[in-house]
Amino acid sequence: MEVRSGSSKAGHRLPLFGWLRGYRSEYFAGDVIAGAVVAVMLVPQAMAYAMLANLPPHVGLYASIIPPIAYALFASSRALAVGPVAIVSLMVASVAGTVAVPGTAEHLGAAVALALLSGVVLLVMGMVRLGFVTQFLSHPVLSGFITAAAILIGFSQLRHVLGVEGGGNNLPTMLWALAQSAADINPVTLLLAVGSVALLLLMQGPFKRLLTGLGLSAAIAGLMVKTAPLVLVVLASAAVALLGLDQRYGVSVVGAVPEGLPGIAMPAVDLPLWRELLWGAILIALVGFLESASVAKSLAAKDRERIDPDRELKGLGLANIGASFSGGYPVTGGISRSVVNYTAGARTPLAGVISALLIVLVLLFFTPWLAWLPHASLAAIILVAVVGLVDLHTPRRIWEYSRSEFLTLVTTGGVVLLVGVEAGIVAGVLLSLGLYLWRTSRPHMAVVGRVPGTEHYRNVERHEVKTDPRVLLVRVDENLYFPNTRYLEDRLQGLVWGQGGVEHVVLICSAVNFIDASALETLEELAEQFADSGVTLHLAEVKGPVMDGLVRAGLPEQLRGGQIFLSTHQAMETLGTRSRWVIPT
Amino acid sequence: MEVRSGSSKAGHRLPLFGWLRGYRSEYFAGDVIAGAVVAVMLVPQAMAYAMLANLPPHVGLYASIIPPIAYALFASSRALAVGPVAIVSLMVASVAGTVAVPGTAEHLGAAVALALLSGVVLLVMGMVRLGFVTQFLSHPVLSGFITAAAILIGFSQLRHVLGVEGGGNNLPTMLWALAQSAADINPVTLLLAVGSVALLLLMQGPFKRLLTGLGLSAAIAGLMVKTAPLVLVVLASAAVALLGLDQRYGVSVVGAVPEGLPGIAMPAVDLPLWRELLWGAILIALVGFLESASVAKSLAAKDRERIDPDRELKGLGLANIGASFSGGYPVTGGISRSVVNYTAGARTPLAGVISALLIVLVLLFFTPWLAWLPHASLAAIILVAVVGLVDLHTPRRIWEYSRSEFLTLVTTGGVVLLVGVEAGIVAGVLLSLGLYLWRTSRPHMAVVGRVPGTEHYRNVERHEVKTDPRVLLVRVDENLYFPNTRYLEDRLQGLVWGQGGVEHVVLICSAVNFIDASALETLEELAEQFADSGVTLHLAEVKGPVMDGLVRAGLPEQLRGGQIFLSTHQAMETLGTRSRWVIPT
Repeated sequence: MEVRSGSSKAGHRLPLFGWLRGYRSEYFAGDVIAGAVVAVMLVPQAMAYAMLANLPPHVGLYASIIPPIAYALFASSRALAVGPVAIVSLMVASVAGTVAVPGTAEHLGAAVALALLSGVVLLVMGMVRLGFVTQFLSHPVLSGFITAAAILIGFSQLRHVLGVEGGGNNLPTMLWALAQSAADINPVTLLLAVGSVALLLLMQGPFKRLLTGLGLSAAIAGLMVKTAPLVLVVLASAAVALLGLDQRYGVSVVGAVPEGLPGIAMPAVDLPLWRELLWGAILIALVGFLESASVAKSLAAKDRERIDPDRELKGLGLANIGASFSGGYPVTGGISRSVVNYTAGARTPLAGVISALLIVLVLLFFTPWLAWLPHASLAAIILVAVVGLVDLHTPRRIWEYSRSEFLTLVTTGGVVLLVGVEAGIVAGVLLSLGLYLWRTSRPHMAVVGRVPGTEHYRNVERHEVKTDPRVLLVRVDENLYFPNTRYLEDRLQGLVWGQGGVEHVVLICSAVNFIDASALETLEELAEQFADSGVTLHLAEVKGPVMDGLVRAGLPEQLRGGQIFLSTHQAMETLGTRSRWVIPT
Repeated sequence: MEVRSGSSKAGHRLPLFGWLRGYRSEYFAGDVIAGAVVAVMLVPQAMAYAMLANLPPHVGLYASIIPPIAYALFASSRALAVGPVAIVSLMVASVAGTVAVPGTAEHLGAAVALALLSGVVLLVMGMVRLGFVTQFLSHPVLSGFITAAAILIGFSQLRHVLGVEGGGNNLPTMLWALAQSAADINPVTLLLAVGSVALLLLMQGPFKRLLTGLGLSAAIAGLMVKTAPLVLVVLASAAVALLGLDQRYGVSVVGAVPEGLPGIAMPAVDLPLWRELLWGAILIALVGFLESASVAKSLAAKDRERIDPDRELKGLGLANIGASFSGGYPVTGGISRSVVNYTAGARTPLAGVISALLIVLVLLFFTPWLAWLPHASLAAIILVAVVGLVDLHTPRRIWEYSRSEFLTLVTTGGVVLLVGVEAGIVAGVLLSLGLYLWRTSRPHMAVVGRVPGTEHYRNVERHEVKTDPRVLLVRVDENLYFPNTRYLEDRLQGLVWGQGGVEHVVLICSAVNFIDASALETLEELAEQFADSGVTLHLAEVKGPVMDGLVRAGLPEQLRGGQIFLSTHQAMETLGTRSRWVIPT
C-alpha cells in the first residue's frame, strides 16, 4: 500500500485545521476523484436511507450538504464520509414514529429536532471528553445489535418491495402489518424491485469480473461498480417515466422534489417535543458515534495514525446541528462510503466537501429527473446494502470462545428484533456491563504451596507442592475493589475457618495493582475478625505504589500483629514450621 | 468472649430450621433475656421510627410482631433483630409522601403497600440469588449516604422538638418549612424535648458510670442503660398526663392507640398505586438489605460463622410481606438492636420471636398508657439514636487514602441532603460503578526492560534496565475485557508507532487471567494493523487457562507470524539482537 507522503508524523493525530493549512497540490486529484465517487454513491444512498427513516427522499440529499462541511472543521479522520446511514435512519424512523405519524410534516419536524438534539449531545460529549464511554459496549453485543438491526431494516423495506402499506418498529409488528395488507400486493412493484435487486447484484458480481477480465485493476473495477446504485436510479426512473408505471400500475414513486437548495434556518424551538425526543436522541448519538468512530479508527490505522475521539464527537455534533439547520436529519460517518472514500484516494476531508458540492449541483439541476424514481428501487438499494451488515462469522467464533458472551450477542439481537432498536441498544449496554461486573466480582483466587526445592509457590490444585497446615497461603489474581471485596472476604473466611488448625493466613498480592478504600476496610475487618478467632492475617508481595497507599492509610498497624512480607517464601520461612506434600487431585 | 457451645461447625452457615431442630435447653435463658431486653428497646424505638415515617406510632409496634417471626423461618443469622429502623423509615416517609399527604389514611395505605412490594422484591431477589448485587456499592458511598441520611433524620425531627408543622424531603425544603413556621414554636414542647434528650444522655453517660462504679460489669451496665428510652417513655407520658401538658400547653401527643392486635388481612390490591411505588420499594428493599446483611455478617463473624445472603433476602422478604399483612410498614434488621440482642445472649432467632410476643403483650394490655406520650420525646429518642450513625472517622481516612473516593463520599452525601434519600442512593450506585469502570478501563501498562545479568524484566521508568530498540516489551497488569481493550489498543499503537524502528512488540500477559471476546478481536486487529506496518505482535507468559481459550479460538494463527513465548526472557533471546541501557528519569 502506498505510503502517503506528507502525512503527519506517524503515530500522531491529524492536527486541527492542519489538513487545510498543510494542504499540498498533490492531494487535490485524490480528493476530487474520491469526492466524486462518494457523491455518486451518496445520491441514491441518501435518498434510500431517508426513505428508510420514513422521510421524503430529498431530505437525505439535504442531509448530505452541510454535515460533511461542518464535520471537516474538527475532523481527526482523513477519509470519513459523513451523511445518512442505515442503522441511524432506522432509529430515526422508530423514535420520530413515537411522536408523529410517518410521512407527515410533524414526522419531518421530529427528525429535524432529533438532528439538533443528537448534535448537541455529541458536541457536549466531545467538550466534556466523554468519548471513552463507547468502549463500554462489548463486541458480541455490538455484533448482535448490528446484525439484528440489518435484519429489521430488511424487513422494513418489504412494504416498498410489495407496494403495500407497512409499519411497525420490530419484527412482530412489521410482519403483522404486512400480513394485514397482503391482499394489496402490487405485482408490478414487486417485479420492479426484483429487477432492481438483480441489476445491483449483476453489477457487483458478473460485471465486475468482466471489468477485471478486460484488464482493469481490482481496485478500479471495484470503484466503478460502486456506481451501480446510481445507474439503477437512472434506469429505474427512465423505465417508470417511459412506461408510465406510476400512473398505469400504481407504482409508488418519489414524486416532485423541491427544486434548489434547502433554506438555512434554526429549527423551531419546541421544548415539550424535545423532552420527548431527548432519550432517543442520546441513543442515536451514541450509536452514530460508535459506527463512525470504529470505521474512522480502522482507516486511520492503515496509515499508522490514530483518531481523537473527542474531536470526532465535536465534528459529528456540528455535522448534525448543521443538518438540523438545513432541513436534514441525523447523520454520521458511513462505513461503506468511508472505505470507498479512502480507497478512491481521499487525502483530506476536502473530499467530503467536494461530495457535498456535487450534491448541491444535483439539487440545483437534476431534481426534476428524480420524480419518477420508484420507492421499490430505493428499497432494493437498501436491501443489497444491509446484506453486508449481517455478520454470521462473529457469532460462530464467539460461540466457540465463550458461551456466556454468545448469550449476550443473541439476547441483544433478540431484543432488537422483538422489541426494537432503542430497547436493543439499552439491553446490550446493560448486558455488557452486567456480565463484566459479574465476572470481575468473582476474582480468581488460589491456595498455593511451595514447589519443593525452589522459592516458587504455585496453585495446589494444579501442581505438586508442599504446604504447611498452620500457614495458609492464598493468592488473589485481581485488584481489590469494592465489587469483589465481599467475595474475597467470603472466600477467605471459608478457607480459614473451614480448615482446622490454621494459625496464619498470608494474602499474596503479586497481582494486585490497586486496593480501593472499600477493600482497605475489608482487610482491616478481616484482620480483626481473624485475630478474634486466633488467626493472624499477613500480606505478601505488595507492589510499590500499593504499599505506599497502605502505609499512608495506616494499614500495617491495623493488622493486629500481622506482617507484610516482601515475598511468599520469606513469609513461609518466618511463619512455617512443618510442611507436607499436597498432590493435586 | 465465651465460646458458644453447640454452634454449627465453624465456617458453616446456620442450617435452615436447624436452629429449631437443634434447639438445646441451655439456649433458652439467653434467648429469653435477649428477647426481653430487645423488646424493651423496641417499644419506644418502633413508635419513634413509625413517627419518623409520618405514620401513627402504634404502626411501628404492629411492624414488630409478625416480621421477626416470619424472618425466623429463613434466618441464617442467630441474633438479627428485625423491625423498624431509622433510615428505612425516612425513606418510607419520602416515598409515601409522593403519593399521599402525611398523616392521612392514604399515607398509611401507601406505607403498607411499600412493605408488600419491598417484601416481594426481596423474596424474588433471594430466589434468583441476587444477593451479590449489594456489593456494588462502595464503602465511601455507603458512608456518605448513611451520615447524610442521619443528618436528614435529625433535621426532620426538629418540627417535633419545636412543636411546629414541618415537612420536606431534603435539607432545603425542611429548613424552608421550619423557617415558615418559626413563629409557632411551642416553648413547652421544646422544654420537654430538651429534657428528654438530657435524660437519655444522662443515662447513657453518668448513670452508666454509676452502675459500673457500683460493681456491675460493663456489659450488664450497658444492657441496663438500653432501657433508657423506655424509662423516658414512661416518665414523659406520666409528666404529660399529670401536668395536663397536652391540654394546657398544646403539647402534641400520640393520642388514643387502638387496643389489641392488628387484624391479619391482605393489603388492598391497587395496581396504579403499586406502579407508582415500585421504584421506591426497590430502593427501600436494597437499602434495608444492605443494612441488615452488614450487621448480620459482622455478628456471625464473631462466631466464625457466615450468613447466606440469599436466605437473608428471603427472610427479610417474608418479614416485610408479613408486615404488610398485619398493618405494619417496611422493616429490616436493625444495627443497634441486633448488637444488643447478641450481647444480651441470644443464641437463636427464638429471641426475636420472644420480643415479638412481648410486643403483643404491650399491645394487649399497655396501650392506654401510651396516649399521653409526647411526640417531642419520641423525637428525642430518634435524635440521640441517629447521632451514632454520623460517621466522621471514615471520611477522614478516605481523604487520606484516595481523593477520588472521598469525592464520591461527599457527592453522595450532598445529593442525599440536597435532593433526598432515593436520589442519593441512586447517585451513590452510579458514582460507585462509574468510578470503577473508569479505573478498570485504564489498566496499568509498563514498558519493561531486562535487569542486567538476570532473567527478570522490570518497568523502565522505575529501574535501570536494558532494552532493545527493535523489540518493544509491554506488560499489561489487568485482565483484557471490553472496557479496557480500546485503551490497550490506543496505548500499544502509540508506543509502537510513536517510536521509530520497532520491529517486534511483545505483550506480556503474566497478570492476565482472562481475555474476553472483544479483547480477542482487538488482539487480532492489532496483529493485522501492526503487520501491515511492518511490526510483528507476539505474546508472552500467557497463563494456562487463558492459553487454552486462545488456542480454541485460533488466535495463534491470526498473529501474522507472531509467536507466543513462555517467558519474556525467551522472547528477548529469540527476537533481540542489540541492547542498550535505559536509566529511569
